[in-house]
Amino acid sequence: AQLRYADVISGDEGVDLWTDRSVGDRDSINGSGSFLIRRGRLVFSGDLGQYFSYYIQPDFASAAGTTDNVLQLRDAYFDVALDRAKVHRFRLGQSKVPFGFENLQSSQNRIPLDRADALNSGVRDERDLGVFYYYTPSTVQALFKEIAGAGLKHSGNYGMFGLGVYNGQGSNRRDANDSYHTVARFTYPMKLDSGQFLEFGVQGYRGRFVPNRGSFRNSATGGAVTVANPADDLRLLQGFRDERVALSAVMYPQPFGLQAEWTWGRTPGLDASTRLLDEEDLDGGYVQAMMKVDAGRYGTIFPFLRWQTFDGFNKAELNAPRNRVDDWELGVEWQINKQVELTAVYHLMDRNNLVTGNRAGRVDYTRFNSDVLRVQVQASF
Amino acid sequence: AQLRYADVISGDEGVDLWTDRSVGDRDSINGSGSFLIRRGRLVFSGDLGQYFSYYIQPDFASAAGTTDNVLQLRDAYFDVALDRAKVHRFRLGQSKVPFGFENLQSSQNRIPLDRADALNSGVRDERDLGVFYYYTPSTVQALFKEIAGAGLKHSGNYGMFGLGVYNGQGSNRRDANDSYHTVARFTYPMKLDSGQFLEFGVQGYRGRFVPNRGSFRNSATGGAVTVANPADDLRLLQGFRDERVALSAVMYPQPFGLQAEWTWGRTPGLDASTRLLDEEDLDGGYVQAMMKVDAGRYGTIFPFLRWQTFDGFNKAELNAPRNRVDDWELGVEWQINKQVELTAVYHLMDRNNLVTGNRAGRVDYTRFNSDVLRVQVQASF
Amino acid sequence: AQLRYADVISGDEGVDLWTDRSVGDRDSINGSGSFLIRRGRLVFSGDLGQYFSYYIQPDFASAAGTTDNVLQLRDAYFDVALDRAKVHRFRLGQSKVPFGFENLQSSQNRIPLDRADALNSGVRDERDLGVFYYYTPSTVQALFKEIAGAGLKHSGNYGMFGLGVYNGQGSNRRDANDSYHTVARFTYPMKLDSGQFLEFGVQGYRGRFVPNRGSFRNSATGGAVTVANPADDLRLLQGFRDERVALSAVMYPQPFGLQAEWTWGRTPGLDASTRLLDEEDLDGGYVQAMMKVDAGRYGTIFPFLRWQTFDGFNKAELNAPRNRVDDWELGVEWQINKQVELTAVYHLMDRNNLVTGNRAGRVDYTRFNSDVLRVQVQASF
Repeated sequence: AQLRYADVISGDEGVDLWTDRSVGDRDSINGSGSFLIRRGRLVFSGDLGQYFSYYIQPDFASAAGTTDNVLQLRDAYFDVALDRAKVHRFRLGQSKVPFGFENLQSSQNRIPLDRADALNSGVRDERDLGVFYYYTPSTVQALFKEIAGAGLKHSGNYGMFGLGVYNGQGSNRRDANDSYHTVARFTYPMKLDSGQFLEFGVQGYRGRFVPNRGSFRNSATGGAVTVANPADDLRLLQGFRDERVALSAVMYPQPFGLQAEWTWGRTPGLDASTRLLDEEDLDGGYVQAMMKVDAGRYGTIFPFLRWQTFDGFNKAELNAPRNRVDDWELGVEWQINKQVELTAVYHLMDRNNLVTGNRAGRVDYTRFNSDVLRVQVQASF
Repeated sequence: AQLRYADVISGDEGVDLWTDRSVGDRDSINGSGSFLIRRGRLVFSGDLGQYFSYYIQPDFASAAGTTDNVLQLRDAYFDVALDRAKVHRFRLGQSKVPFGFENLQSSQNRIPLDRADALNSGVRDERDLGVFYYYTPSTVQALFKEIAGAGLKHSGNYGMFGLGVYNGQGSNRRDANDSYHTVARFTYPMKLDSGQFLEFGVQGYRGRFVPNRGSFRNSATGGAVTVANPADDLRLLQGFRDERVALSAVMYPQPFGLQAEWTWGRTPGLDASTRLLDEEDLDGGYVQAMMKVDAGRYGTIFPFLRWQTFDGFNKAELNAPRNRVDDWELGVEWQINKQVELTAVYHLMDRNNLVTGNRAGRVDYTRFNSDVLRVQVQASF
Repeated sequence: AQLRYADVISGDEGVDLWTDRSVGDRDSINGSGSFLIRRGRLVFSGDLGQYFSYYIQPDFASAAGTTDNVLQLRDAYFDVALDRAKVHRFRLGQSKVPFGFENLQSSQNRIPLDRADALNSGVRDERDLGVFYYYTPSTVQALFKEIAGAGLKHSGNYGMFGLGVYNGQGSNRRDANDSYHTVARFTYPMKLDSGQFLEFGVQGYRGRFVPNRGSFRNSATGGAVTVANPADDLRLLQGFRDERVALSAVMYPQPFGLQAEWTWGRTPGLDASTRLLDEEDLDGGYVQAMMKVDAGRYGTIFPFLRWQTFDGFNKAELNAPRNRVDDWELGVEWQINKQVELTAVYHLMDRNNLVTGNRAGRVDYTRFNSDVLRVQVQASF
C-alpha cells in the first residue's frame, strides 16, 4: 500500500498530474496538500499442480464514478509451464504487457514515485488481457535471480524473449474493435568480470486503438466542444494506428547506477485547436542516475536524479490529448526494512494537463510549470 | 477463474451474446475475437462454532459503469444448522435460489460454458437476498456425497427439499416493491442396482418483479424510444407477475449421461413494437447428452451435445426484452487435473440480442443466426 | 457480516432511514419488509517488523451507481510505533477519525443497530484519510484491555490522547479544497474500588467542508430545484465552516450501564425553502441505558433503551439537508457465541428524510413519524 502527500511549492496554478491525484492546488481538480492512497494491493497466488500456477491481485485504490477506493483487478493470470525448468511459459489472462523495463518493474522495485510518461503511456496501467509466451533459458533465470537477490531493483522475470497478443484497449477495458495488439520484447542481462550487472532490451508493439471521446474546453470564452472527426471516419470504430518501438539500458546500482529508455512511434492523438483525432508521431524517454547506499541497521538508501521528456499523446485518457513533458526529479528512497519504504522527491514539472473538467473558466489541456514536493510511504505485505 | 475467447465463424453480424461478452464481431458492442475474464472468484468461508458457518465469495469480473473487473459480491451467507447432522438448515443472506439443477451447479461442475436461458433467466445471477430452509435426510446427504465424489458433476447440496423467501430483484439489486418472492424445490436422487445414479426434481417460484426501463431503438429510421405504459400503471411500481414451475431430470454420465430441464410460467416482458410491458407466457428448456471418458494421467474428458430452446423474456435485462433461443452446442471439456479445465464449443446460435446500445444505425433486440467457436480455460483454487 | 430485516409497523409512509436501506414501505425508495446486507467486511492485517503494522478492511456492502455489493475500502492504514510498548503511535492512511466514543466502537461492540445521528454525522462513515497520532500510557493500555476483556463493549484503543489532520470530505472521497480538518480527543478510563469501570471523554474537530450538490424537490407542485447560492460564493469551492466539540460519558454495564454523548457545533446546511447553503448551528446527542445479563451456555443478553435527539444537518448527504431526529429505541442484543449475534429493536422514529429521489410526487426532506421493527443477524469472522 502507498500513502502519498504532495504540496505545490511554486509555479503555475491548476496543476493536475495524471499519474498522481494528490498533486494539486486550489485551482486544480484535487485540492492542494491532500493525502491520497495511491496503491493498495492484495495478492492471492499459488500452484495448481506442477505446470500450472495462478496470480490474482486486486487493487483497492480504484475509482468507480464519484466513489473512490473500490476494489478492482490489476493482475489475474494463469501460467502454463511447458517444462519443469519453466524455460517455456504461457501466461493467459490480464497481466503486464512486456513493453519497457520500468513498466515491468513493480512499484516496490522502482525508485521514482511514478513511471516516466514516454513508455508508460504505451499500455494503460501497464496491463492488458491476452495470451503471452515467455522464453527464459536457465542461465538467464539464474542471472535474473542474482540481480533481484542483491536488492538491485530488477524488473522481474518476463522472459529473455517475450511475445504476446492482447485486446489493446488497456487494463480493465473491453476490446473495442476487431483487431489485436501484438507485442515482442528481447532483454539481455550480463555480468561483467568486475561483478557489475548490465541489461539491454529492445521491444515493440503494434495494433489499432479506439480512444474514448468526451467534451473539453479549448478556449477561455467558448463552451465545451467535442472531437470533430466526421461520423463516417472508420477509425473511430476500428481504431487508429498505435505502434511503438523502444530501447532500454540498465547499469545496476553497484553502488552507482544508470538507467535509460527511449521510445518512438505512432499513436492516436488530438489536435485541440482543430478538434481532430489523427495518427500522430511521438518520441521520448528518460535518463536516471541512482546510488545504492547501505546504512546497516537503518536499511538502504537510494538517492536518484531523473530527467524525462516526451513529445506525444496519451491514448488512454479521454480524447487522447497531447502529452508534453520536460521534468526533473531529485529524490531519495529510504528502505527502512524489507517491507517499509519512505520516498521524498522534489519534482520540477513542465508539462500539460491531461484531464478535463477543470474548475470553471479554465481551459483544458493547458501547460503548467510547477515545483512540487512529494512524499510517499510504502508498505509491502 | 475463467478466461474466454470467441470467434464468430459465419452468419449474421451484430451478435451480442448476453451471457458472454467475448462473443462479438465488428458490428457488435464488443469487438470480434476478443479475450474476456468471464469469472474470477475468491472464497472466504469457515465455521463459527458447531451450528454456524459462513461463506463469502466476491467476483472480480464485475462491471461498474464503464469500468470492468471490479470486485462484487456473489455469495455472502450464513448457515444455521438446527442439528449436528445438518438435516435441517437455515441459510441467511445472498445465496443461490433453489430453482433448477443447472442453476445450482457451480461453473466447475457444469460442462457447457453458460447455463441455458430458459431456467437461468428465472433468477438474475442465480442468486438473491433472503432466508432459505433446506431439509436433507442423512441418506440423501450420503447419496449427494457419493455422486459428487465420483466426479459426476453434481449440483451440490441444496436440500432434498428447499423453501425460501427473497427480495426478488436478483443478485446485488435492492428490493423494489413491497412483496417477496417465494420458492420451493424438491429433488430426489437414487442409485439403481446397476450403480447408475439418477436424480429428478420439481421446483417453482412466484412473486412480483419490477423491470428496469431505459431507451431502445425499435426501427431503423426512428430515434430511441422508451416503454409506453401509462405512469399510473401500478405494476411499474409494485411489479408484474413473475412465476414459474420447472422439471429436472439427470442420468449421471457413467459413462453416458443425459440431462434435461424444462420450465413454464408468466413473466414481465416487452412488446417492442407497441412499447408496452405486460405479463407474458414463457416456456423452454434444454436436453443435453454427455460422456465421461477417463484418460488416465491425462485427466478426464467430457464430450457433450446440447440443444436448448426458449420462447420467453429476460426480466433482468433493461426493458425485459423478448428472449427467443434455438441453439445447438457441440463441445468437449477436458479436465487436465483437479484444478485446470479446458473447454471448446462449436455453438450454433439462433437467438436475439438482449442488450441495447448497439452500434449506430442498428435496431435493438433483433434476431441473429451465427456460428461461433468458443474456448475457455478455467482454473479453480 | 450483517443481514438486516425491517418492517414498518405503523405511522407515516415514505420512510427512508439514511443509515439503513432495509427500512421502508411501499412509498419509500426501498420496498417494505426487505432484506439487506448492511455490512460485510474482510480484514487483512499483520506486523511488518517490530514497529510497523498494517490493517486493511474492505466492505462488500458498498454501492457503485445502480449496482450494490461492490467491494470498497473501509480501513487501510499503517501504524508506526515510536517505542516497543506502543505508548506513542502514528497512524497513516484511511482510518477512523477519533471523534466520539460510539463512532470508534466497532459494530460488534455497539449494542444498537446504528450510531446516533448527532455525533455520527460529524465524519462520513466515521473515517477519513490522514495522519493521526495516539498517546496511550501503559496503565491506560492495561485498563482498556481489562474493559474489553470483560466483554463490556469498549471502543478500542484510539489513545488516551489523539490528534490528527485529515482531508475532511469523508471516507473514500477525494479532498475538495485546500485545507485540512484537524481533530483532537482526550478520553480517561478509571476503575472504582467497587470494580465499576467509568470513562469520560472530550473531543473536537474543525475544518472546511464542500458539500455535494444536486437537484431536489421542495414543493408538491413545482419541479426539481437546485442550490441557489451565487456562483461566486467562494464557500462552494473552498468549503463552509465545519466544527464541533463533543462530550462522552460511559458507565460500563456491570451489570447496569449508562452511556451518553452530546455535541455542539457549526456545519454546512441547506435551507430547503430558500435553497441556500449556509453555515448553521447544530446540537444533539443520546442517552442509553443497558444491562449485561449472562445466560450461561446460551450466551449473553444485552437489553437496552436509547433516546437520541439532533437538531442539525447532514453535510455528507447531497445538499447537506436538515437532519432533525427525536427517536426512541427499545431492543435486545443476544450474543449467542463469540461470533454470532442476534439483535431486535422496536424503533420509534420521528425524523426527516435525508435522501432525494423519492417516488414521483413526494417532496424531498420531509418529516415522518413511524414505528419500525428491525432485526439483525451479525456474524463476526
